[in-house]
Parts: sequence; structure tokens; C-alpha cells
Amino acid sequence: VTSELAFIAALRGMATHPAARGLADDCAVVEFGAETLILTHDMMAEGVHFLRDQDPADIAWKLLATNMSDLAAKGAEPIGVLLGYTLGGDDARFLAGLTEALAHYGVALLGGDTISVTGSQTLGLTALGRATTRPVPSRSGAKAGDTLWITGAVGAAMIGLEAWQAGHADPAASVAYRRPRALLAEGRALAPYVTAMMDVSDGLLLDAARMARASGLCFAINSADVPIHAPENRRAEALRWGDDYQLLFTLPAGLEPPVAASKIGVAIAETTAPILLDGEPLSETDGLGYEH
Amino acid sequence: VTSELAFIAALRGMATHPAARGLADDCAVVEFGAETLILTHDMMAEGVHFLRDQDPADIAWKLLATNMSDLAAKGAEPIGVLLGYTLGGDDARFLAGLTEALAHYGVALLGGDTISVTGSQTLGLTALGRATTRPVPSRSGAKAGDTLWITGAVGAAMIGLEAWQAGHADPAASVAYRRPRALLAEGRALAPYVTAMMDVSDGLLLDAARMARASGLCFAINSADVPIHAPENRRAEALRWGDDYQLLFTLPAGLEPPVAASKIGVAIAETTAPILLDGEPLSETDGLGYEH
Repeated sequence: VTSELAFIAALRGMATHPAARGLADDCAVVEFGAETLILTHDMMAEGVHFLRDQDPADIAWKLLATNMSDLAAKGAEPIGVLLGYTLGGDDARFLAGLTEALAHYGVALLGGDTISVTGSQTLGLTALGRATTRPVPSRSGAKAGDTLWITGAVGAAMIGLEAWQAGHADPAASVAYRRPRALLAEGRALAPYVTAMMDVSDGLLLDAARMARASGLCFAINSADVPIHAPENRRAEALRWGDDYQLLFTLPAGLEPPVAASKIGVAIAETTAPILLDGEPLSETDGLGYEH
Repeated sequence: VTSELAFIAALRGMATHPAARGLADDCAVVEFGAETLILTHDMMAEGVHFLRDQDPADIAWKLLATNMSDLAAKGAEPIGVLLGYTLGGDDARFLAGLTEALAHYGVALLGGDTISVTGSQTLGLTALGRATTRPVPSRSGAKAGDTLWITGAVGAAMIGLEAWQAGHADPAASVAYRRPRALLAEGRALAPYVTAMMDVSDGLLLDAARMARASGLCFAINSADVPIHAPENRRAEALRWGDDYQLLFTLPAGLEPPVAASKIGVAIAETTAPILLDGEPLSETDGLGYEH
């Protein structure tokens, strides 16, 4: 119900708080036939999430990876996807990338719909997974005293985008931006232990603020503890850049995660701001990430 | 697998036969936790499926109804939907129509995604249902000798669209076009008995041809037996007009349907054309309906 209300609020463009927008991105959890189904739907639009001159194979990869990342944050095992596809670009190239990504994640293309449009492309993907842990991790379960962790470095996609924009000769230089990896195995390993979990798609600080809002507390983050894949003088940017799809999660104090991860902060009961970064209170209006 | 291949063929724009396009509209059937899940995803685009000056509340209704109709054809009980919505139109009005339609069909808005776009609107809806009958009815199960039935009249949406375009003062005159009804109860009642079933969304003759192709046979249809909701001199058009969302189904010879329906033809082993209309062979290239 929470996510339904938040989604309706987002739909209205009438969210009472900026954080409510982020809630709409959360997965749906549906009890079905003695198991638990996890569903997510993400859209990507030309000019917003990708550019016309990007390789359609990369766009297809990213569309799948972002949805798989949503499942990863729930500790879900992916089953399949339904694709909403607007024909008229380089459809063969899109298909090549999609086929490759489906094989990489071991998921089936269950169906979907195609339409021909004259304007800009809008893509939609619904991903379906099976919960492996119950209760299913959410972004609202963090408790004061919990430790805050991230599975790896942020900033790689930022550097990758810049390499791509600069026309870097080596495709590997931009791969972190073009072909993000969803951390499905890590999500499944973490799910039984975390008190809250989400994927970082819009910027570490912004997504951490959303988790803090959802959990009704504040994260005190030590910026130097956040691993970055960028020059040190760009740390502040890396903490605000999305597209890396690391998993952000909380654990009860004293518990170590079962996968490689860095401890970056602690949850505190303070609720005047969702983030304390090196002691400075920050909220969503302070430019914490990518709002779209 | 069939629907996956057909979908990929449609994606490529390389369908080897016009009928393959239609197959992509079919639902996905997924065994999950001792039950069977039915999934469908439909897109609607401004300029293709609706016009900019249409009431967004009607567009929301139709988006939901078309997906509910896909579930109806599977005899499924709807559970919920995920919406992909492009913000920027009259969002409040869209929400009003969506809320009304969700209440009418008793389904939950489980989640989704919203994006802001500058161009034309593209909407996507994923609907999720529970199979009530196994095997789940498909469009490929008709056998030679089966009788062909339809749940009601075609042509009402055509007349409704014309009333709407003409600016008819009474909104009831266009309601069949603006607010189609998905026949969920009829679909569930029929599912245990039918050999094949689908909803008529693109025109009776075109959809019947798709069912014939999928089943590897031909339907001999007696046009005078098809109930129409249009003047008699427009019978040929009514048989080719979509948007009425009646259920088209086959039964073993001699079996009567458990819901009101009209017998309009019979399945024959002939396979040179998918349709014999009053004895005349017709195929998809003969303008049987709305190709999009």
C-alpha cells in the first residue's frame, strides 16, 4: 500500500515530499501460490535516460540491467521479463544487445508489445522474480544503530560516460556506463541479513536519503569511507552520480556482510535531515543525485 | 517459446508471416509456486491508439480494459497492474479514470514508473493474473470440427468512435469506444470448456485469422451469423473493426457455451487460407482488421 500511495502521489506530480518520488521506483511484492513474487517496471526514454546516438545494444543491456538491479535489491531470483518496445530505431541492434543481456542474466523474454511511433523512443520493461528470503528486504527497515554499507565503488559510470562522450577509442573505458552489472548474486547472499536494502541508481547520497526517509531516521555517512572509482578530487560528484547499481544496505551493529562491501556510515535516530555527511546535515533539495 | 519467437520476430520487424505479429500480443503463462501466473503487457501511444484531444480518463480506462481483456481470454482472475506513465498531460484526469477503472475491475495498482517526456505520450501497462483453469486457454488449440463462437456484437466501438468524432452531445453514444468492458467473468466461465480463446481487439476477421494460423486450420465463417451493433449496410466494416473486446472461442462440436454467445462458424482442416467468409477464402493481406 505504501508503494501504491507513493506511486499515485508521483503520478499526480503531487508528492508531498521529494523523497516520495523515489518510493515509486520500489518493487511490488505479491504473495502468490505459497511463494512470493517480485515485480518491477522501469521505463527509459530517449533524451532522458539515453541519447539517440547511443548503441541500441547498450540501451537494451541497460534497460535489462536496471530492472535486474531492482530485483537484486530484493534478493530475488529473476524469472523473466516483458518488453514494451517502440519500433523504428535500429531494431536488429537492439535485439542483439537484448539477447546478450538476457543470456547474461539467464532470464527469458516472456512477451511484451511493440508499437510504431514517429517521435522519440520510450521503452518499458517489466521484470518478474521469485523472492528467496522472506520478509523481502525493503528500503524502510533500517533501525537506529544499524551500520550502512555499499557493495562497491561509485563514480565508475560517471567516468565511463565521460569517456563515451569524449569518443574514447577503447570501448572498455565506457563499459561501466554502457553496460552496468546488476548484483543479483550479492543481493541474494545479503537478503537474509539486511535490515534494509536498495540499489543505487540515482546517486549514493540521494538514494541513501530515500532509504533514510523510508526508515524514518538519518544516515551519518563518512564520505572518505565510500569507495570511489574516480579521481579523489571528484569524490563529491561520485557520491551524487547514479548508474553504478551498487547495493546499499544496513546491517545490525556488529554483523559483517557475507559479500565484499564497505561500511560507510551508521543509522541514527535524528530525523531533521536524512543525511549527515561528515557531520553536515543534507536533504534532497541539496542536490544529492539525479532527480528525473 | 512460441510466443517468445514470435515476439522476437515482431521485434525484428522480420516476421515471416503477417500473422506472427498478432502472436506477440498473447499473454505469458508462467508456472509459479504451484499456481499459474498470467502476464500481459500492452502499450498505447498518442497518435496510434489514442488522440491528444481524448479525455485522459478514457485513455486510462481503455489501457486497463485492454489488458484486462487479455487476461479474460485466458480465463484469468486479475491480481494487479504495473503502470508505465509519461507525465505531462492532464495527469489528474488520467488518475481519475485509472482509479475508476481499477475499482471497476477490482485490481490493485502494484507499482510502476513515471517519466517526463517532451514528445508524444507512450503508456505501458503490465497486468498480472492467476489462471483459474489449466491448461490455460490459448489461441492455438482449435481442432477441425470445432464450432466458432463470439460473446457478443462487434461494431459498437466503430459507431462509438464516429459519435465521439462527430461531437455527439450524449456521452453514452461513444461509451463503447471510450470505455470498453473486458469480459473477465465470461472468460473464466468459458475457460474450462474452450479449445481455443482470444479477445477481439483488432477486428473479428483478423483475430479469427490469427487464431486459425495459430491452430493450423481455417475458420469457415457465416457473416450473417455475426451479431453486429451497427447498421446492416456496415456489416463488412463491423467484422473488420477492433476495440470491442468480445471473446472469440472454439468449442468441440455439440457443446453449448455456459455464457451467452453466438455461433458464427466452424473450424475446417483446409489451410490454404485462414478464413472462408461465406465461402470466399481470405487472408491477412485482404484487409481483415486493424494492423498496427
